[in-house]
Amino acid sequence: MTNKNEKNAQPQSGRRRFLRQGAGLGGVALGAGALAAGAPATARAEALTVPPWTRAPGEPVLWRAYGRPAEFEKNVIRRNRGAAPMPGANSSMTPLQDLRGIITPTGLVFERHHAGIPLIDPALHRLAVHGLVDRPRIFTMDDLVRLPSVSRIHFLECSGNTGREWRAPSATSVQISHGLLSCCEWTGVPLSVVLEEVGVHPEAAWVLAEGADSAAMTRSVPMAKALEDALLVYAQNGEMLRPEHGYPLRLFLPGFEGNMSIKWLRRLKLGREPFMTREETAKYTDSLPDGSARQFTFLMDVKSVITFPAPDHVLRDRGFHEIAGLAWSGHGRIRRVDVSVDGGRGWREAKLQAPVLDRALTRFRLSWRWDGGPAVLQSRAIDEAGNVQPLPDQLVAARGYESTYHYNAIQAWRVGADGRIANARA
Amino acid sequence: MTNKNEKNAQPQSGRRRFLRQGAGLGGVALGAGALAAGAPATARAEALTVPPWTRAPGEPVLWRAYGRPAEFEKNVIRRNRGAAPMPGANSSMTPLQDLRGIITPTGLVFERHHAGIPLIDPALHRLAVHGLVDRPRIFTMDDLVRLPSVSRIHFLECSGNTGREWRAPSATSVQISHGLLSCCEWTGVPLSVVLEEVGVHPEAAWVLAEGADSAAMTRSVPMAKALEDALLVYAQNGEMLRPEHGYPLRLFLPGFEGNMSIKWLRRLKLGREPFMTREETAKYTDSLPDGSARQFTFLMDVKSVITFPAPDHVLRDRGFHEIAGLAWSGHGRIRRVDVSVDGGRGWREAKLQAPVLDRALTRFRLSWRWDGGPAVLQSRAIDEAGNVQPLPDQLVAARGYESTYHYNAIQAWRVGADGRIANARA
Repeated sequence: MTNKNEKNAQPQSGRRRFLRQGAGLGGVALGAGALAAGAPATARAEALTVPPWTRAPGEPVLWRAYGRPAEFEKNVIRRNRGAAPMPGANSSMTPLQDLRGIITPTGLVFERHHAGIPLIDPALHRLAVHGLVDRPRIFTMDDLVRLPSVSRIHFLECSGNTGREWRAPSATSVQISHGLLSCCEWTGVPLSVVLEEVGVHPEAAWVLAEGADSAAMTRSVPMAKALEDALLVYAQNGEMLRPEHGYPLRLFLPGFEGNMSIKWLRRLKLGREPFMTREETAKYTDSLPDGSARQFTFLMDVKSVITFPAPDHVLRDRGFHEIAGLAWSGHGRIRRVDVSVDGGRGWREAKLQAPVLDRALTRFRLSWRWDGGPAVLQSRAIDEAGNVQPLPDQLVAARGYESTYHYNAIQAWRVGADGRIANARA
Repeated sequence: MTNKNEKNAQPQSGRRRFLRQGAGLGGVALGAGALAAGAPATARAEALTVPPWTRAPGEPVLWRAYGRPAEFEKNVIRRNRGAAPMPGANSSMTPLQDLRGIITPTGLVFERHHAGIPLIDPALHRLAVHGLVDRPRIFTMDDLVRLPSVSRIHFLECSGNTGREWRAPSATSVQISHGLLSCCEWTGVPLSVVLEEVGVHPEAAWVLAEGADSAAMTRSVPMAKALEDALLVYAQNGEMLRPEHGYPLRLFLPGFEGNMSIKWLRRLKLGREPFMTREETAKYTDSLPDGSARQFTFLMDVKSVITFPAPDHVLRDRGFHEIAGLAWSGHGRIRRVDVSVDGGRGWREAKLQAPVLDRALTRFRLSWRWDGGPAVLQSRAIDEAGNVQPLPDQLVAARGYESTYHYNAIQAWRVGADGRIANARA
């Protein structure tokens, strides 16, 4: 396989000379004497050359006190479609086509900002909790970090992820079509602990969460969710949050649409009714064919996508390939993923990588022999609540063409006889 | 709590001016109108100031196409004791005192190198498999990545971790004493798949694994382990391995001492007997009081450590604190962790963070009220095989004082009345 985006770093000058020499031998890598007498001739030729990285000591320990990816991986980065109409209001996508397993490395976790990334001094950051509470209070980060904590592995998905597949399925990359999606280990204080500290009035039914960014991003959260499993998160994949993910504090609502997990969280206000903020009236609602709109569509639906092979890759050889992808649901665990390689006529059950966690990305894999002809690859996820990922036509029949958010239909990739892969509906 | 190492980044000039102004108000952070009328006076004063990061848009999306930690976290890095006698042969430790949950961010995963970090071009890297096999073969990275893959979350620990606690318990940091320890999601090909490709002779009982670094680091692996759960790993926490962790390919042996998970793996040779390499004769053996040595001590024993509070922290206030730590065992899952705050007279069972995974770090937590007096904090792990972490005296009684590797005794931190924390045996 080859990644189309891959333009590997230039080797250093000494290595470049070595590359030219090595090419004459048909490739390199092994020390003399490495091979059994029965090895093929080309393999023995390869064994004659000792690569430069074996000839001399390498970079010292603590070369990088905080590590970075290899130079050869420099094209594995967040990307987006380009400039957005409003400064600061934009997103970037996770390179799903290059990732393995379920954990998204934090440096590649997608971004969605409404007014850019505020750089907040944690010593000066405060969280105010007020409204229908007995003891309104301002918390410092030290106050919060000192409280009882939990860690959970959960996916985070923007409700606009794959929104363009609805009317204009044009993405030529799974990073661009599905990359507003990541999965991390989140650590923080259960919101229920903080609410117990302040004392919730019995009539409080909603919590307004407000960010400290200059968009003052605000959403209303039902009290049931706040008490059930909402977290005030300060750490992600072991370390403190990064600035672009809400440093030093964010709300995290497992299974809910990403924008509600308010970043740079500075305020929680308890009230009787939803606060009808801009982000839940003008935005993040789903227009329906009859002119009405679905509002407060919090839960992310069951969904999956094949990340290999995807339009980002080219199949160079026939024969064995492992189809791999990700499945997830805001309703709970993934129960099953079926994969079709013939445009939906036949389906085979994929293998799910354990542990299959509640509202986390789940990696699925299926062995496949590519015969070199055209093929259409699709995955269909089913969650433990019994929800089945719909076909695009089924989704459109239910919700029309006017929505942008909460598109969760089955994605089809078309493999050409040349090994190139395209969006089957583009 | 305060991290002694923390020397926060200097704020930018505009922010510095703001800091001085803010200090006059007794702290800052909230927008006007943020507070209920019942809020305390200092809170209302704080609310008068809108912090600079709320006043103007922040950094743009894709500010960093590959993310990095916040500047304020710049002291959360790998560290070590300083120069080692041989160039390239050294280690660095994970800052356990600053981490949460169980996933170690890859940039902070500990290092142990025997001849520095080779920078390997993955297109030129090869893995040779030969010896007692039917079809000796050289694999490219493309060959390997194409094979069926699995992902597993496992700890990795250097067998020398905490070795200095044996004779000279002097570490003033849990990073230095216990930081040759990390936990990641590893993805790669089961070694059994590759062995099936080449056809193992019935008499093959050991596999020699060799690295492509200039130390040509080599260890012998029993065939049973190779077939059971050994992995040829190319990805760590979702992305390709970093250079310091074996890019582009390493062996990974769940539960075994770290040095056997050969990095930069270039060769596997199958034989009848262990290969008696330098690293399993002169090194990585455990001297006993009678002059003999334990050899091939592969499995890492059951172990735990309290990471908060640890000598890296200072307790500023009496009252509630959450004791947190990590437990792990090469024998399987952690069954229970007990914590003592009174030097071992009483023990309470800590809460284990789910999911508790096989041979992975397990986060434990226990609520504690510090009365402001001296205290001695200890944790004791028990694994599913029934192994109980020993006291230092018990370990010494069994193995004497001549060993360096496989020290797994209970660690005691002494809290002083001044809130400072020390190694209780130092």
